[in-house]
Amino acid sequence: MGSTSDLPILQKAASFLNDMKIPFEMNALSAHRTPTEVEQFARGAQGRGIKVIIAAAGMAAALPGVIAAMTPVPVIGIPINSTLDGRDALLSIVQMPPGVSVATVGINAGLNAAVLATQILALSNDEVRERLEAYRSGLSAKIVKANEELKEVSYEYKVN
Amino acid sequence: MGSTSDLPILQKAASFLNDMKIPFEMNALSAHRTPTEVEQFARGAQGRGIKVIIAAAGMAAALPGVIAAMTPVPVIGIPINSTLDGRDALLSIVQMPPGVSVATVGINAGLNAAVLATQILALSNDEVRERLEAYRSGLSAKIVKANEELKEVSYEYKVN
Amino acid sequence: MGSTSDLPILQKAASFLNDMKIPFEMNALSAHRTPTEVEQFARGAQGRGIKVIIAAAGMAAALPGVIAAMTPVPVIGIPINSTLDGRDALLSIVQMPPGVSVATVGINAGLNAAVLATQILALSNDEVRERLEAYRSGLSAKIVKANEELKEVSYEYKVN
Amino acid sequence: MGSTSDLPILQKAASFLNDMKIPFEMNALSAHRTPTEVEQFARGAQGRGIKVIIAAAGMAAALPGVIAAMTPVPVIGIPINSTLDGRDALLSIVQMPPGVSVATVGINAGLNAAVLATQILALSNDEVRERLEAYRSGLSAKIVKANEELKEVSYEYKVN
Amino acid sequence: MGSTSDLPILQKAASFLNDMKIPFEMNALSAHRTPTEVEQFARGAQGRGIKVIIAAAGMAAALPGVIAAMTPVPVIGIPINSTLDGRDALLSIVQMPPGVSVATVGINAGLNAAVLATQILALSNDEVRERLEAYRSGLSAKIVKANEELKEVSYEYKVN
Amino acid sequence: MGSTSDLPILQKAASFLNDMKIPFEMNALSAHRTPTEVEQFARGAQGRGIKVIIAAAGMAAALPGVIAAMTPVPVIGIPINSTLDGRDALLSIVQMPPGVSVATVGINAGLNAAVLATQILALSNDEVRERLEAYRSGLSAKIVKANEELKEVSYEYKVN
Amino acid sequence: MGSTSDLPILQKAASFLNDMKIPFEMNALSAHRTPTEVEQFARGAQGRGIKVIIAAAGMAAALPGVIAAMTPVPVIGIPINSTLDGRDALLSIVQMPPGVSVATVGINAGLNAAVLATQILALSNDEVRERLEAYRSGLSAKIVKANEELKEVSYEYKVN
Amino acid sequence: MGSTSDLPILQKAASFLNDMKIPFEMNALSAHRTPTEVEQFARGAQGRGIKVIIAAAGMAAALPGVIAAMTPVPVIGIPINSTLDGRDALLSIVQMPPGVSVATVGINAGLNAAVLATQILALSNDEVRERLEAYRSGLSAKIVKANEELKEVSYEYKVN
Repeated sequence: MGSTSDLPILQKAASFLNDMKIPFEMNALSAHRTPTEVEQFARGAQGRGIKVIIAAAGMAAALPGVIAAMTPVPVIGIPINSTLDGRDALLSIVQMPPGVSVATVGINAGLNAAVLATQILALSNDEVRERLEAYRSGLSAKIVKANEELKEVSYEYKVN
Repeated sequence: MGSTSDLPILQKAASFLNDMKIPFEMNALSAHRTPTEVEQFARGAQGRGIKVIIAAAGMAAALPGVIAAMTPVPVIGIPINSTLDGRDALLSIVQMPPGVSVATVGINAGLNAAVLATQILALSNDEVRERLEAYRSGLSAKIVKANEELKEVSYEYKVN
Repeated sequence: MGSTSDLPILQKAASFLNDMKIPFEMNALSAHRTPTEVEQFARGAQGRGIKVIIAAAGMAAALPGVIAAMTPVPVIGIPINSTLDGRDALLSIVQMPPGVSVATVGINAGLNAAVLATQILALSNDEVRERLEAYRSGLSAKIVKANEELKEVSYEYKVN
Repeated sequence: MGSTSDLPILQKAASFLNDMKIPFEMNALSAHRTPTEVEQFARGAQGRGIKVIIAAAGMAAALPGVIAAMTPVPVIGIPINSTLDGRDALLSIVQMPPGVSVATVGINAGLNAAVLATQILALSNDEVRERLEAYRSGLSAKIVKANEELKEVSYEYKVN
Repeated sequence: MGSTSDLPILQKAASFLNDMKIPFEMNALSAHRTPTEVEQFARGAQGRGIKVIIAAAGMAAALPGVIAAMTPVPVIGIPINSTLDGRDALLSIVQMPPGVSVATVGINAGLNAAVLATQILALSNDEVRERLEAYRSGLSAKIVKANEELKEVSYEYKVN
Repeated sequence: MGSTSDLPILQKAASFLNDMKIPFEMNALSAHRTPTEVEQFARGAQGRGIKVIIAAAGMAAALPGVIAAMTPVPVIGIPINSTLDGRDALLSIVQMPPGVSVATVGINAGLNAAVLATQILALSNDEVRERLEAYRSGLSAKIVKANEELKEVSYEYKVN
Repeated sequence: MGSTSDLPILQKAASFLNDMKIPFEMNALSAHRTPTEVEQFARGAQGRGIKVIIAAAGMAAALPGVIAAMTPVPVIGIPINSTLDGRDALLSIVQMPPGVSVATVGINAGLNAAVLATQILALSNDEVRERLEAYRSGLSAKIVKANEELKEVSYEYKVN
Repeated sequence: MGSTSDLPILQKAASFLNDMKIPFEMNALSAHRTPTEVEQFARGAQGRGIKVIIAAAGMAAALPGVIAAMTPVPVIGIPINSTLDGRDALLSIVQMPPGVSVATVGINAGLNAAVLATQILALSNDEVRERLEAYRSGLSAKIVKANEELKEVSYEYKVN
């Protein structure tokens, strides 16, 4: 994360990874305030066995792209809404130049970044894939249940 | 792709995958015009051994999200600029609800979708990883060469 | 609705339909989390005698379009403001590709969706049409009354 | 239409209605330049047996809403892109106040307006419904055929 | 005003007109809910000696343009921020088609609408012009005074 | 005008004023490049008998507001589209602070600026008012005629 | 500053300049309400030894550009968010015409304006440069420390 | 510059610097494709006597901010319009986090970046300041001359 003020967004990612039993680490690294530490982290990631990087940043959110520039490990970018509803961060992350990619998820979408990371890891890990599929079934079940509850909302002309 | 008018964007992806020696298939599938075929494709993807899906769509670009809803295989979404500079497609693809993710790349970024797919595949394939690293070095070399050429642009007060 | 968090918006629609004595049902169905249920609902709608469908969704709001893809029944889409002031949902709903339409109403416009549904049903139901016309007269009367009350706001140089 | 410069967009609607064998008339009426004619048209529409009105306008596109204010007949609004990519027209049409609705379709979406009108008319006309279903199957067939043709695009590593 | 919820914005206009000793009336009239009353008002304005009309509306703000279509009296439009930060209302008011104008002021700018009306009336009324000039001097004096007070904000390295 | 590149827009204004037999002058004055000349013009306008000022500018369009700051004469602002579709100019002109107003017309709306100026002048000049009313009738007649011509567009199922 | 309501933003700038031991003055000056005072300030700035001007303004933020038009001293513009999330002010400040520049910083970025001013002054003042470098090291240290603290956030599968 | 496709924009800067007799160098450096070269350039800039850096980039324009992160030398950022009218680049450059600044100029504003650089250098170089003032007078003279030429545009009711 570019700043610890982004922590609440990233805790959603961390909780999900924990539920999926995927080991992870958390770092505060800023493309604009600690470029040396960012480089050290990004250059060393592959060698340390890191498989996916989730990078969250707000405003002129350079962090995800700068990391992607320095490692072949897939980088998932989370635009953080700190100004302009997060549109500045979204465009700063998603509009990468040809040849260097960031897998961008929605604004403040900490959970979805972790889901995407899990999908990538599940490609080569059957246990993770099974946990992911259980999670996806649960998602579905929650809406199905909500649908049931809607039947209890009553109106005179409501048919069910 | 949601429409064959998106083919020029996807040919950039196809060329790159070809260069990386990654086997792929191409489909025209529309979330709004062939929902049955989309479902058939998405539900069958994992079983057929597909590792990554690249889905491109313009306007109210539902295709990437709809596929992601029906398969745990990672889906990379390319927003196509057919109206409103592609902003409609970008928001329709990136702003997924909690629990279902699309790895969104930039507007019309066919090449970057393939680069991202390659990064994901490289995690479990050393040959792909080596080709990817060669490509990344080449990217860098191109700018370094352009930098050299800039020295030939002459002005009286230019210092090098 | 794509999520029960949209219920307050849809209750405005439900109340209006109730006032118009139009039978209706309410469902929670998500294009991204319960695609199977969405398909089942949409494919069966015409056969079950449903005349109009109101579909509300936020963010990358695929639900109205996905339903419209699977049924010839007219679909009214309500963009829900959950992020980006609802602009993401508006574009995701209104910018449908050629051949498949969603009748889009304003952001969070639950009431207007029901008014539009009523207008469609009134085409073949004289009792509904009369109730609708009474409602429209009432709308007008409310402003006329507000206009009267404005005359009581006093300023020295106000002429009436 | 608000101006005959919108005719190319509306000809797509007219062709579709013609194909569906739906009788229609075309008018040029401007909320800002011929308000008297607009009123005369809107007030008389229901009495003349008009079932659906398609209103297209650009810029500060008041026409669809002004007509909707004066008739209970459903009004489909087409935002025309003449300035600002059509965003001004889209917001001027879709963001109606509570109680008066316009069924808004995409920017310049002349065809989709006619498709939506046809869906509404099909509710009480079985022949129209059959023609509409044939059209929808054709839409699907076109993409399925495009999908076939994609197989002929050849790359060394393309699998089908 | 299109709705009495706009009253707080228009009271700023009314207070200013009162201070300028300019007689005025206030009306609630909606282009979408009371089109007949709007027409009656607009058509009769010139004959009743109205010199300037201030029309405020939010969302798909048709009121100012619709009035301008029916009277040669200058119409000042105030976009009201009720949704989308008022951008929908701004575009719905300012982007008039060629030949019919609305003098648009800023979002929620009730005071500025009255200032502009006063400037127009001052062209043929010397007393109004003098009051306007006194107001303008006062504006300036307020900032000059604020500037004085800033000198009391103290910092070690502040030079005055 | 802020730059002579804006001349084509302002020639529409000039032609209209000429048709209305309203004497006018044209100036190139830039808030950012000739502030002294702008001030001289604005401070002297009222004394020279100028009744209305039309100020056109693009980008960070300060000209209309800066003139309005220095004269009580009503200022009509035309946002010129030179970058960002004219949205930068629109916001730079319309969003004036409380107390100083610019009567803003649409982007590139040279004609409408002149129409608005004419409406203001017509308040105290009956001949101008009559010419304006003739113009407004003509506007209406043009659409009525276009409407007639639409009857000649033929389709098999077109009813008139 | 254009209005004393901008003071909280500018106090961040003032505190930073104080910390850097850079003498400064604060003024309230409005391009639209006190144009004479603005001119007097801008024309006199260079002669009074002012090296850098920081100008903050909201809405149709003409102040920075108007000052830049009247002095060769570098002007740093701060767009203030008072309406439209500050986008109106940003475009009104940054989109200057060719030949006259404003060094624009982010929306409400009072601190960054002062940092930029300090960078400019540091070019010819070694003491200021040393203080600036100490500040920059501190920025970095703060994130490094935050990074340390993140290690204390514990999850079962967190690796450090 | 981030890419040699930006060269036409930067040649305007180079020509201006040449006219001002300011020595400069040109580099192609990409934050995303040659991060090592960017770092080397930025870290070495101050030591090599560079006084101001102009950095141009499009899309997710990280270059200006990344350079600013690694040097206390003032960095002027030019957002390049390659996609989305340059709004993505503008936000990616101007919205820097607290503590690290980029002096942003308008979209594609190569000339204005050089003007701003010259203003900064003029603070400590009287010859540069004199050339800059001559340039500024010339700017003004050009508009004054254009104003003269406007007198030759003739209309019957034009007064001068």
